[in-house]
Amino acid sequence: MKAARFYDRNDIRIEDIEQQELQPGTARIDVAWCGICGTDLHEYLDGPIFCPSHGNPHPISGEEPPVTMGHEFCGVISEVADDIDDLAVGDHVVVEPYIISEDVNTGPESKTYHLSENMNFIGLGGRGGGLAENVVVKRRWIHKISDKVSLDHAALIEPLTVAYHAVERAGVSEDSAGQVALIGGAGPIGLLTAAVLKAFGVTVVVSELSKARREKALETGVADHALNPEEVDVVAKVKELTDGAGADVAFECTSVPVVFDTLMDALRPRGVLQIVSIWGKPAEVDLNKIVLKELDVRGTIGYVNNHPAAIKLVEDGRVDLTPFVTARIGLDELIDEGFDTLIHRNETAVKILVSPSGKGLDK
Amino acid sequence: MKAARFYDRNDIRIEDIEQQELQPGTARIDVAWCGICGTDLHEYLDGPIFCPSHGNPHPISGEEPPVTMGHEFCGVISEVADDIDDLAVGDHVVVEPYIISEDVNTGPESKTYHLSENMNFIGLGGRGGGLAENVVVKRRWIHKISDKVSLDHAALIEPLTVAYHAVERAGVSEDSAGQVALIGGAGPIGLLTAAVLKAFGVTVVVSELSKARREKALETGVADHALNPEEVDVVAKVKELTDGAGADVAFECTSVPVVFDTLMDALRPRGVLQIVSIWGKPAEVDLNKIVLKELDVRGTIGYVNNHPAAIKLVEDGRVDLTPFVTARIGLDELIDEGFDTLIHRNETAVKILVSPSGKGLDK
Repeated sequence: MKAARFYDRNDIRIEDIEQQELQPGTARIDVAWCGICGTDLHEYLDGPIFCPSHGNPHPISGEEPPVTMGHEFCGVISEVADDIDDLAVGDHVVVEPYIISEDVNTGPESKTYHLSENMNFIGLGGRGGGLAENVVVKRRWIHKISDKVSLDHAALIEPLTVAYHAVERAGVSEDSAGQVALIGGAGPIGLLTAAVLKAFGVTVVVSELSKARREKALETGVADHALNPEEVDVVAKVKELTDGAGADVAFECTSVPVVFDTLMDALRPRGVLQIVSIWGKPAEVDLNKIVLKELDVRGTIGYVNNHPAAIKLVEDGRVDLTPFVTARIGLDELIDEGFDTLIHRNETAVKILVSPSGKGLDK
Repeated sequence: MKAARFYDRNDIRIEDIEQQELQPGTARIDVAWCGICGTDLHEYLDGPIFCPSHGNPHPISGEEPPVTMGHEFCGVISEVADDIDDLAVGDHVVVEPYIISEDVNTGPESKTYHLSENMNFIGLGGRGGGLAENVVVKRRWIHKISDKVSLDHAALIEPLTVAYHAVERAGVSEDSAGQVALIGGAGPIGLLTAAVLKAFGVTVVVSELSKARREKALETGVADHALNPEEVDVVAKVKELTDGAGADVAFECTSVPVVFDTLMDALRPRGVLQIVSIWGKPAEVDLNKIVLKELDVRGTIGYVNNHPAAIKLVEDGRVDLTPFVTARIGLDELIDEGFDTLIHRNETAVKILVSPSGKGLDK
């Protein structure tokens, strides 16, 4: 079958490979759509980061390059191991793409399996990936979706769940209606974070340099206000919108230090600053701003038992993923049309979906 | 009466001044003891910070330099306004030294009055101070203490309450027995934070460069382990003490970036890093450490409705303040014996108490 495989930085190849063998406790998924994630771009440009490097197999998957890429994917069950009785051929599913030690409790009550030692992702650390015609996944990581969710939308469930978990970590819930949130950066994760916040009735203010992204944030209805920080005093505007108090919560989705600083200034005392972005290098931070307002700065990574709730938001129509799919391509176009667009012309692109088999493109 | 007054950086004078007038809703306190705080040293060396500057009166107190210094104090009520019926001459009291706008709710249910706009401190921002023979304070900020607390110990209630609030902000409580805390820095606030944690049954590990301070932490019984970060791998030692998990909570009491970094590394996933120190300048922080372990970095400043609980810890004998009083001086020795000792020979000094009237020194 065809698959996109990571060999090394700047070396991702589309190849014909043997499909994985079905093992007890697993099912085969014919991939319908796989989104391209910023993390994939980082592996391509600066990696290996999550991907293993040559001679250093991942301690849980045991794999080293080449590894199949793609972790934002959905598809249709095509083969089920004999010991699984709650999945059937034809089921539509999304994957929670974790590689986690068998020793870790990943039960529904666990709040920390995603923070366990050597955690990695299917599609980065081994075990196949969504940028292949099919992939074999353990039952634990497969989530069924109803026919209320189309398969192209379903590929966005993974990044939506990242956003859902960030919102949960920030303490925002169904009870938070009327709160005001400031989001720094309206890239894919910033927009999906806004979508979850809006579903919870939160007023969303986005700060974003790109005009196209600000327009996307407003057109999709996920932001109430989209500010250009080069033209607007974001802190003053947020204070104006909150009777001088400041935002209740802020989401850092850029990994740019000045944005982090603006969010600290725009928060109310005891506000929560949720760091959603991955930071490639240390940043200069005025920690006294955390001290003097008693801010709460929290990290978030991945998700932990959040897929069912994120899927339900889409099934219930509270989040509409339609406007976030901005292109559909085949696997052969992955680098030229996918990565290059996101790297060089990414202002209007939100999520580019790949059909590894090409079947999705025929429709 | 005699008072120590801040004129400007490097200019604190011991002078004879008029005592304040008693106003409705206030009482006069003859100061027994006033501790010298690191904040006082910062005003002397780098100020004005909390103190107003010439020509810029504080918006609530309306005062500009000179202002009387000293905010860690206790004393005996010597005069009570007619409209106050729950204080009597002779009562022993400590002061919660806030200057807060009359518009702010400072009731027992408030959790944020200390974060209100232009909040400042008696003894820094105006309204007299503890480095004077007496001071007039609003009833709201006066807390009675029983005869179970000696007056020299009572002067340490203020910094103890800072520590109590930091511990509360970090989510540590009576229910936290058995948790492991790492404290960066065993200066006065680090030691008092350790004392509160020990009272709650937490295992305390201190990282401190100074041998004298490490010894103090162990001698006083507030630390279970006192590590020299130049000789010991603090992160490895904490992991060893916690079966590989990492500390549950960490307290940054140094304002040194490398200590902050060590605390992040030593925490378990989802651990809390409580910043207790004041940071004079921005620091380089590897924010990805917050992200990948989903840490929770919290600020803390002052206290909010914490005095009764902190006083009770001392009254109940759960915190013994005796070993933290390392010297007693008169007001005339403030700069030479007080400030200079803390600035230049501060390894063995924890808390230096000043008797503004000199009466305490006679005993």
